[in-house]
Amino acid sequence: MQRQDFPSSPLGLHRVIEPAGALPQAAWRLDPSPELWPDEARVRVDRLNLDAASFRQLSEAAEKARGQNGGSADAAALRGAVLGIVAERGKMQNPVTGSGGMLTGVVEEVGPDSPLGLVPGDRIATLVSLSLTPLTITDGLARWDGRSEQVPCEGHAILFGRSIAAVLPDDLPVPLALAVLDVCGAPALTSRVVRRAGADAAPAVVILGAAGKSGSLSAAAARKAGARAVIGLVPTQAEADLLTASGLADQVVIADARDPAAVAESVRAAGGPAQVTVVCVDVPGCEGGAVLATADGGTVIFFSMATSFSAAALGAEGVAADITMLIGNGYVPGHAALALDLIRAEPGVRRIFESRTAEGDGHAG
Amino acid sequence: MQRQDFPSSPLGLHRVIEPAGALPQAAWRLDPSPELWPDEARVRVDRLNLDAASFRQLSEAAEKARGQNGGSADAAALRGAVLGIVAERGKMQNPVTGSGGMLTGVVEEVGPDSPLGLVPGDRIATLVSLSLTPLTITDGLARWDGRSEQVPCEGHAILFGRSIAAVLPDDLPVPLALAVLDVCGAPALTSRVVRRAGADAAPAVVILGAAGKSGSLSAAAARKAGARAVIGLVPTQAEADLLTASGLADQVVIADARDPAAVAESVRAAGGPAQVTVVCVDVPGCEGGAVLATADGGTVIFFSMATSFSAAALGAEGVAADITMLIGNGYVPGHAALALDLIRAEPGVRRIFESRTAEGDGHAG
Repeated sequence: MQRQDFPSSPLGLHRVIEPAGALPQAAWRLDPSPELWPDEARVRVDRLNLDAASFRQLSEAAEKARGQNGGSADAAALRGAVLGIVAERGKMQNPVTGSGGMLTGVVEEVGPDSPLGLVPGDRIATLVSLSLTPLTITDGLARWDGRSEQVPCEGHAILFGRSIAAVLPDDLPVPLALAVLDVCGAPALTSRVVRRAGADAAPAVVILGAAGKSGSLSAAAARKAGARAVIGLVPTQAEADLLTASGLADQVVIADARDPAAVAESVRAAGGPAQVTVVCVDVPGCEGGAVLATADGGTVIFFSMATSFSAAALGAEGVAADITMLIGNGYVPGHAALALDLIRAEPGVRRIFESRTAEGDGHAG
Repeated sequence: MQRQDFPSSPLGLHRVIEPAGALPQAAWRLDPSPELWPDEARVRVDRLNLDAASFRQLSEAAEKARGQNGGSADAAALRGAVLGIVAERGKMQNPVTGSGGMLTGVVEEVGPDSPLGLVPGDRIATLVSLSLTPLTITDGLARWDGRSEQVPCEGHAILFGRSIAAVLPDDLPVPLALAVLDVCGAPALTSRVVRRAGADAAPAVVILGAAGKSGSLSAAAARKAGARAVIGLVPTQAEADLLTASGLADQVVIADARDPAAVAESVRAAGGPAQVTVVCVDVPGCEGGAVLATADGGTVIFFSMATSFSAAALGAEGVAADITMLIGNGYVPGHAALALDLIRAEPGVRRIFESRTAEGDGHAG
């Protein structure tokens, strides 16, 4: 099954149906057909891991619909929503949040020109977003109960020449490895920024949502990269207890990340403002608090897909904050290995992941 | 007229009506009443300068409504839209784009504790966004023809303790100074990033929308900060001619900034990819092109308020681009002076501003 009717692009431009010329991530619709171009690979999918912002939005929409209908169609409504998106778009990209997630599966076929170094039978996770990965679902998501962003799934997906996939490690359970790889860009970029800031003086680092998955990994990465102090901000006493028990933060403070004044005050009381602030809270409205938590000359890294570009830009300008604001790029070379090493080395991170994977990610994932 | 019924905040929290606890920029509604708290100042407004993304959105909405009604209610529809927003929100923040703009006026009253150093009679421009500035309009915008983002206007506005305002220079026409100050964050941040990149080797800089206001200032700033080459990308031959005549770019290329493949190809043909890419095109969908125009290890600065956070984050990850992406913070210390100096020193920038101010800002403002 090899297609050569027209040339392929390592970026996947040849799979874009609509609108023509768009990159796969920005496109409305992709061609997920199983026949491969020579530089592609096909994966037999067994699990999707929906992006936290996307899963939240889908859950809230289903919850709302349930309230209106008086029924209890939770799982069915969620399945229908995901199946509808994938059928219409040829990829699992939530049209509201724009975000996707990732998947695991087994490599089924590899084109002769694929540069990814995969062989059939490799068990892999994709490290490029579902929002640009051609996908077909064939089992109606029958095994998904709708209660977790980890979605058991049968179907196939396509990897382009420039896609990124990681062979899953033997020493970690698959759901755990998948959850770690899903957010592995966050600790990698945090590590880089903290190291660079440390060229002057070891920075104080604030993590908004430090008891979540990307938050706990980022806290561990910040400490390992030489942070002078790690301040973890969480929304509830339960999360504070979890974070305190993990030992990942030097200070734990409780505040609503959407309340700028409360964030600023609690961070100040804990020894802030920070030279580096990392936003790992997947709810809208955390831009102002992040800005006020950060010292002049400092850096904010926004990882949450719920971040508003204009709220961040205008929020900083509006309070005359001379800070650097980074869009959290999910790709940093070596990110998968760095994150997997952290979860192996830090029992506190692993405990947080295991509690989160069991119960869903809560408000700080 | 002094209010002391409850304490004021330098950030303006005391003017937020809804929702409580929000920063003024993120708030839905502010209190624009003229009585001052002790650290505030009041300005008699004479002109609004709407943010380019906001003006475009309002114009397109009015155009659409006109098409449906078959009428020609352009100016009236635009006036109604702006008046409606200000009446409802107590500030001119476009609910669709989230952006505002700035204003000019004359200082009318200064509270005894205001730290801004203003005195009544000073002719000033605000350098904080209209999206957080309490505003009342009293003339129904009768003098605005709806054809330019510069809006003659009577009313009053409030400056907080931490607001930023610049006294307008004597040697430049007010509309010109206002247009420059409106985008002065862009050349200042471009200058800083190019200088830092230059610590290794003089960078090649690509400006998307280089024949616009922020684009031409950023091009001039990049060259002054030591860029090895400035590549200006514009959408049309007319803009290419304008940019070539200005002498601000070493290379001028024509491409649709929303077409990633076209941007990448034209930038490569002109000597790219760039170490620094500056996005000054106020239309959605430029994230992919900016990513592909940038070399690994390089930096993209997004100034356009039409930027999508998730499209940028996932777009870079999707093509495994190891680049730094900055949210263009409108505040950099010294930004007003830097931009005004550029327009005084660079006749090419001034010509572009004068043509843009006369004709509206086109697609690249």
